[in-house]
Amino acid sequence: MPTLRIALAQDNPVVGDLDHNADLIRRSASAATAAGAHLLATGEQSLTGYPVEDLALRHTFVEASRDRLVRLAAEIAEDGNGALPVAVGYLDADGPISSRAGHGVRNALALLQDGKVLFRYYKHHFPNYGVFDEERYFVAGHELHLARIGGVDVAFTICEDVWGGVPFAVAAEAEAGLVVNINASPYEQGKQERRLAVVKERAAQIGAPVIYLNTVGGQDELVFDGGSFIAAPDGSILSSARRFAAELLVTDLELPAAGNGDLANHSSSTMSSVLHVLSEEPAAVEARIEPSFAPDLDRLEEIWEALRLGLADYVEKNGFKSVIFGLSGGIDSALTAVLARDAIGGDNVHVVSMPSQYSSSHSIDDAADLAERCGLHYTVEAIQPIVDSYVAEVAISGLAVENLQARVRGGLLMALSNQHGHLVLAPGNKSEYAVGYSTIYGDAVGGFAPIKDVLKTLVYELATWRNAKARSLGQPEPIPENTILKPPSAELRPDQKDSDSLPDYEVLDGILTGYVDGDAGREDLVEQGYPADVVDRIAGLVDRAEYKRRQSAPGTKITVKSFGRDRRLPITNRFRGK
Amino acid sequence: MPTLRIALAQDNPVVGDLDHNADLIRRSASAATAAGAHLLATGEQSLTGYPVEDLALRHTFVEASRDRLVRLAAEIAEDGNGALPVAVGYLDADGPISSRAGHGVRNALALLQDGKVLFRYYKHHFPNYGVFDEERYFVAGHELHLARIGGVDVAFTICEDVWGGVPFAVAAEAEAGLVVNINASPYEQGKQERRLAVVKERAAQIGAPVIYLNTVGGQDELVFDGGSFIAAPDGSILSSARRFAAELLVTDLELPAAGNGDLANHSSSTMSSVLHVLSEEPAAVEARIEPSFAPDLDRLEEIWEALRLGLADYVEKNGFKSVIFGLSGGIDSALTAVLARDAIGGDNVHVVSMPSQYSSSHSIDDAADLAERCGLHYTVEAIQPIVDSYVAEVAISGLAVENLQARVRGGLLMALSNQHGHLVLAPGNKSEYAVGYSTIYGDAVGGFAPIKDVLKTLVYELATWRNAKARSLGQPEPIPENTILKPPSAELRPDQKDSDSLPDYEVLDGILTGYVDGDAGREDLVEQGYPADVVDRIAGLVDRAEYKRRQSAPGTKITVKSFGRDRRLPITNRFRGK
Repeated sequence: MPTLRIALAQDNPVVGDLDHNADLIRRSASAATAAGAHLLATGEQSLTGYPVEDLALRHTFVEASRDRLVRLAAEIAEDGNGALPVAVGYLDADGPISSRAGHGVRNALALLQDGKVLFRYYKHHFPNYGVFDEERYFVAGHELHLARIGGVDVAFTICEDVWGGVPFAVAAEAEAGLVVNINASPYEQGKQERRLAVVKERAAQIGAPVIYLNTVGGQDELVFDGGSFIAAPDGSILSSARRFAAELLVTDLELPAAGNGDLANHSSSTMSSVLHVLSEEPAAVEARIEPSFAPDLDRLEEIWEALRLGLADYVEKNGFKSVIFGLSGGIDSALTAVLARDAIGGDNVHVVSMPSQYSSSHSIDDAADLAERCGLHYTVEAIQPIVDSYVAEVAISGLAVENLQARVRGGLLMALSNQHGHLVLAPGNKSEYAVGYSTIYGDAVGGFAPIKDVLKTLVYELATWRNAKARSLGQPEPIPENTILKPPSAELRPDQKDSDSLPDYEVLDGILTGYVDGDAGREDLVEQGYPADVVDRIAGLVDRAEYKRRQSAPGTKITVKSFGRDRRLPITNRFRGK
Repeated sequence: MPTLRIALAQDNPVVGDLDHNADLIRRSASAATAAGAHLLATGEQSLTGYPVEDLALRHTFVEASRDRLVRLAAEIAEDGNGALPVAVGYLDADGPISSRAGHGVRNALALLQDGKVLFRYYKHHFPNYGVFDEERYFVAGHELHLARIGGVDVAFTICEDVWGGVPFAVAAEAEAGLVVNINASPYEQGKQERRLAVVKERAAQIGAPVIYLNTVGGQDELVFDGGSFIAAPDGSILSSARRFAAELLVTDLELPAAGNGDLANHSSSTMSSVLHVLSEEPAAVEARIEPSFAPDLDRLEEIWEALRLGLADYVEKNGFKSVIFGLSGGIDSALTAVLARDAIGGDNVHVVSMPSQYSSSHSIDDAADLAERCGLHYTVEAIQPIVDSYVAEVAISGLAVENLQARVRGGLLMALSNQHGHLVLAPGNKSEYAVGYSTIYGDAVGGFAPIKDVLKTLVYELATWRNAKARSLGQPEPIPENTILKPPSAELRPDQKDSDSLPDYEVLDGILTGYVDGDAGREDLVEQGYPADVVDRIAGLVDRAEYKRRQSAPGTKITVKSFGRDRRLPITNRFRGK
């Protein structure tokens, strides 16, 4: 069997920064050439970043992508890497670009060689669920392209094509010796297992290896988690790249030789295939490379890495140097602080203790303790004089005063952000966002909400795990034990506890997982054993908080359904708690 | 030719309130029976409201819709209206309901008679652009249903079907004598003209009248503007309903008799047809009804009515009784005040003057003057002591202090809202939202932004128009002349004017119309005559303000592209000002 040395660029492009992204591809091409690779693949829309959302409706952006692709082909050749076939993901158009229909815009892959574009493949299947809106933008391609490289017929596909399957059926018919599938697949818990399962199934179907190449990096609510891999027809994994980190993965693959017949122009009912012959002779392979396998991550480390990368890239890609938020001594802001330290370094993290008259002294101590353990910039600001100045102006009481305390804190953080240029982080968790237990324009202020998709029970798990990880590395625990052990409280009125008005977090989070993530109904949850009155109350809270969530900061998606692009509910909605 | 008396229920359903919506349909059925009608049609998803967004992924909601439909059929019969065929729009499912794909959920129309569901039609074409995401939810139907009523074959279609056209081609083939098209079509400027054009074209195509039945009412960002009409094949309008108001439109139509052949089971490549015979004999028509025609609205009155209805329904459907916002003496809050008065009555409108040290005395006078002219609840709150209390706590200057003033105002409004239950309105206009000239958590606070999609130049036009309308009715002008004439200013620093940092609003709004609404590029705008440096600066401001808009309140869409579901751009995006 002929052998091909395949290089996979698991890179971190930035949406809209075509020059930066082209540079990443050029660097990978140089490294792949140096490594003696016969093919370099890059991720879905590696040139434009993903998802570009409504930028796909702007003709200037699509033209910039098309033009930059042609220049990139020339640059790769100028760099001395012209002999290397390079698969690049980009945005193309071969029809009118219209914001009404998006017809003519293509989610495309081009194969570049010798300074030229050899062919352009257009994605066939589109995801249009969850966070994805590809039917809004793209028109489907119906032609699979194969490149004969070193006597092996390599087929190229994009992301949802591996789930939808038609291009793989055509690849099987065309007797492809390898199928490359390039992705920008966002992380959620359990996603990698589902990818492995479908890719192994496709490899068995075509009787040849399948390459699953993913992107890495954060983009608003999404984190692309890398973890690229190559699956053999027997279900074994031939090599794999790290999760949550950029990597150039180089693998030697023994592959089925192309048949002698003319395999061009196969067709199925919905898709045809075209063969491009680059080189018939088996490629020379010097000094075989041992396959490389990335370590598996355990459940909590995987989640932590997703949150860390999501935050780090939001900060960096939006041009911030530092973050600021309130440190209450409670578990949410404590976890946010450690996450921010891990993401951008403690010296770039500014935390503010803003105790009210209801804040317990241990809360203030815990906050100071954590800031010292993590090496954060720590200041204390009094809110009571400002709260008093409001109350002197308007006659308010009860909930209005509780919320006012949170809003004064938000005002102080925004003032410091405006003055010093820090990005404000909102440290709310998913359970809070779900039931609306946060103050809009108060503790919810911020440009990014790093743990927005983390249920409260998972907040505790992650805090415990992060401390244990520190111990295992011989480092001091970042989170004070008292912060983890004490009962959670918003501390907005005397002796307030979350449990005064909410069920235990195990119960709450169980109901939320069903109602929010699973679109379960009241009866489904009662059947699962949750008390009907509690289900009704929680579902009602979730429904009524929609207006707050609509104005909330984006945060990293880690579950099957996060609040944001992923879950689109009307505010005006009288279907309550069902 | 046989004559049919057709009743069209242009109603205002509430999303998720199936009982309320069913009651509206029952009342229309009683009124239609009393009027001697032979057919009653109701709007798209008249039973569930529209758009239900991700409620369509919740099996309990789809089941509630299916069950409520069956009960509604029985209720209409119990009411003594069983003989009347009633077309109802609702949500159906005939396959698994999955949040990953939405397969199996149908945007459906049922024809009810004698307590039974005679047939269920599933929408064929789906809008998946602009504010629409129907490919996310629905699977297409491929069977057109015709009902022979009084010897006329009536075909039924839903909304996008009239734009896509396949069901109309099948209706033409089946020799339909009338096509009913039920809609929930949201308002934007120029939309009614486009509807008239396409419906007239379809009527000519099938050689029979086409009914365009629209919904009315506000739903979050959308306003359904009514204006239902019946077009004849020669392009004439046979009757029409009012814009922006509920109405039962009853029209006698002379229609082509059904042929003698069996017209059932026609088929095209993608769609077949089925005929249901209800009554072969021409229907009896007592005392012919004169056709009714609604008045046309001029451009500004149409916009005003859209904004008024959008605000009124957001308040009412979300259970609020009253609104509150800051009245600065400037044009935006003045227009918002008059709009709120027109929408929900001056006694339900609370305005607060919150002058700073930079507020001119005429601004304060103008605010008081307007409040008195409009009969609003007016109070004055001082912000300087609160601003001072912040500045005593944190060392800030410049922009941070400017924003602080706006945030203190926002804090005061939220405190009053929490205390008294008013809905806070955000009075920002589209030009401000576009370039980010508003303070997040400051003047941008609010649950609803009534003039969010109104460019500043249109704000002035509407203010002038509304005063002129008052004069023409012999009423006092609601807006003080000085508010309209003085140069716009945020009054956040001494002698500040909008024109210090922005081009003239005519230029700004021209650029925004191209860049935002039209997805135009830099070169397109320079070709239109705008200076390149101004285009670059404005486009850059628009791009950088995306994070603010993502956290902004919803507001009524009146343009081809509003900020909200209509325009989805990444925050993290380095494609700048192109």
